[in-house]
Amino acid sequence: MMLEELVGRLSQPADSKVCLLVLDGLGGFDGMGRTSELAAANTPNLDRLAGEGCLGLHDPVAPGITPGSGAGHLGLFGYDPLAYEIGRGALSAAGVGFELRPGDVAARVNFCTLAADGTVADRRAGRLPTADNERLAGRLQAEVKIPGVEVFVRTEREHRALLVFRGEDLAPDLGDTDPQVTGVAPLEPAPRTPKATHTSEIVSSFLRQARVILDGEAANFVLLRGFDTHRAIPQFPERYGVRALAVAAYPMYVGISRLLGFTTPAAHDSPEAQIATVATRIGEFDFVFFHFKYPDSAGEDGDFARKVAAIERMDGLVPELLATGITNLLVTGDHSTPSQLAAHSWHPVPVLLWGGSAPADGITRFDEAHCRQGSIGRVRAFELMPMLLASAGRLAKYGA
Amino acid sequence: MMLEELVGRLSQPADSKVCLLVLDGLGGFDGMGRTSELAAANTPNLDRLAGEGCLGLHDPVAPGITPGSGAGHLGLFGYDPLAYEIGRGALSAAGVGFELRPGDVAARVNFCTLAADGTVADRRAGRLPTADNERLAGRLQAEVKIPGVEVFVRTEREHRALLVFRGEDLAPDLGDTDPQVTGVAPLEPAPRTPKATHTSEIVSSFLRQARVILDGEAANFVLLRGFDTHRAIPQFPERYGVRALAVAAYPMYVGISRLLGFTTPAAHDSPEAQIATVATRIGEFDFVFFHFKYPDSAGEDGDFARKVAAIERMDGLVPELLATGITNLLVTGDHSTPSQLAAHSWHPVPVLLWGGSAPADGITRFDEAHCRQGSIGRVRAFELMPMLLASAGRLAKYGA
Repeated sequence: MMLEELVGRLSQPADSKVCLLVLDGLGGFDGMGRTSELAAANTPNLDRLAGEGCLGLHDPVAPGITPGSGAGHLGLFGYDPLAYEIGRGALSAAGVGFELRPGDVAARVNFCTLAADGTVADRRAGRLPTADNERLAGRLQAEVKIPGVEVFVRTEREHRALLVFRGEDLAPDLGDTDPQVTGVAPLEPAPRTPKATHTSEIVSSFLRQARVILDGEAANFVLLRGFDTHRAIPQFPERYGVRALAVAAYPMYVGISRLLGFTTPAAHDSPEAQIATVATRIGEFDFVFFHFKYPDSAGEDGDFARKVAAIERMDGLVPELLATGITNLLVTGDHSTPSQLAAHSWHPVPVLLWGGSAPADGITRFDEAHCRQGSIGRVRAFELMPMLLASAGRLAKYGA
Repeated sequence: MMLEELVGRLSQPADSKVCLLVLDGLGGFDGMGRTSELAAANTPNLDRLAGEGCLGLHDPVAPGITPGSGAGHLGLFGYDPLAYEIGRGALSAAGVGFELRPGDVAARVNFCTLAADGTVADRRAGRLPTADNERLAGRLQAEVKIPGVEVFVRTEREHRALLVFRGEDLAPDLGDTDPQVTGVAPLEPAPRTPKATHTSEIVSSFLRQARVILDGEAANFVLLRGFDTHRAIPQFPERYGVRALAVAAYPMYVGISRLLGFTTPAAHDSPEAQIATVATRIGEFDFVFFHFKYPDSAGEDGDFARKVAAIERMDGLVPELLATGITNLLVTGDHSTPSQLAAHSWHPVPVLLWGGSAPADGITRFDEAHCRQGSIGRVRAFELMPMLLASAGRLAKYGA
């Protein structure tokens, strides 16, 4: 039996209001004269909760594995990411509310800029304004024609969009066309299995037409990644017996929450707006997933000071979040994004568990170094949900 | 390959005398002004062993999971409780030496007291004297009649008994009839699968008859839980290549030891009597499981001082236990039972490993806070047995 199945069986109701607060990309890279952003940040509220709760570190997937956002969040929601794979395409679809059907093939689109020699000049087309994205997505939607295949192009935000193919005998086993670096040509959508050859040809046809349609536009091509299809995944509210609310500022996090069955109001403009939603709707829910994006964005940009400021901003909002009625809180990240590396990384992520029967380690500082000393130890992300639910009185005893 | 299979393959003989000392319900709930019972206890002997050995914490099943005694002990014996499930019924049967056959359905019985309105007034019938239990079990055994089904009722101790049904097409997938609280009516034995419907009707028939037979008695009804059947489980002595002795004061712990193939003298009256058995028989054995029940009983009763006293009592007996010839010792609990919660809990359990090649952490105090700092870290219970056997020279190298 997998742990997550057991946790599902043991779920029981309680009066607690549980919150999973994800500071995206929270973890940093410290030691040897380096400081992590969390260690540098002034976080009096999180430090107070640390003293009253317990600390540790988690590996989102497994030690050494750098996760994408999908895998990172699956782990936090208590699903072993080695058992459930969700591609970026399926996440994008969920994020914009596009309902994938079995057999559909979906991919994440980046509108990009190619140089005159056909190499990638900017993978994000200068973070294309959303209005331009909508216009270009509309053109692709209207003008691309592939016999026997329906094509859907949906704007997400800035340079990001969703692409879906619907037809007979499609398979998602394709390599990304996004080379992840500039100065080289986009890749072909390479089939990874024989049955994806047909789909590869369809995607190539789409790309040839897109190249013509977008010629001369601010974004003159698209990069595709995360080919995926519809996935059946156990629903979070049923599994844990909770009424579950997700509040997030970015469509992708709305999307993964929606895939798992959370009630997902549309993406919010700010964490303050997210808190306002929690305050209004907390009475209807037992569990709140609160996603705060900015530490990751800053880390990805290599901006240490901005990541520190983002962490401090959320710290300042923690009392207001708790004041909505939250009784049990897990604060962590979906992965580390050290600004020194300007990318997601494999470093374990700080964890703070507070409230209910969570023991108090008596460590009054929330950062990587202090988390190493905490009683949670170093666990897999999917082992956190049982502790959070247990501390909130939501898990019955196993066995006689 | 599961870890436990590897450990079995690597087992080798040695001259060591290994002891697993289980202080039932050892772990507590500390911090935030709370103190754990172990931290409050004066334990000079365990503290001395702590200084000479190494410390850590274990999760009996997994982080966040509150285990019953069966799952808790399976973990300590090196079996992943997520892979082996043993119900209370099978444990009770083993405890009283009743040999379940494949197809039997067994349940743990509580003799209880119903109020005039049919609701449960006392789940334990005032901890019914064992002599009364024997008389009432005898009446049920003699007077209940179910066509085509053999019924066995066996006294355990106080209010506890074993009930076994033997017949065609029986299935153990039934819900407990014990509502776990007073003031409500006992539950019906709800079938969890279609094939258990027939068994549900048989159990209901037993309960209707029991109600009539016990009318007017000190215990006027029975509550059933942990429906289970015969389980094949790898035997401990064969797996680890040890001659294994279990000394315990309660039938259930004798029972689980017997299920796993330990040599199990009848339940003892006191830890002193258990030590006397070890002293007499140590020459015949390589491994001793020593079960000490009282910290759990006190914790369950919410009695902090009595749990402290129980821990101190066992601490005082440790030199005598070691003097029997024990060379390697693992001291821990099967789960936590904080008196503040008056119940089993999910909190990780202190671990002390001493002797042979166990490293010395140099931490001279055995309690939760110091165990957090120990070199064992926080592990699953089933990861302790390999360390205990290794420290005792009983595991060969894996691979060339």
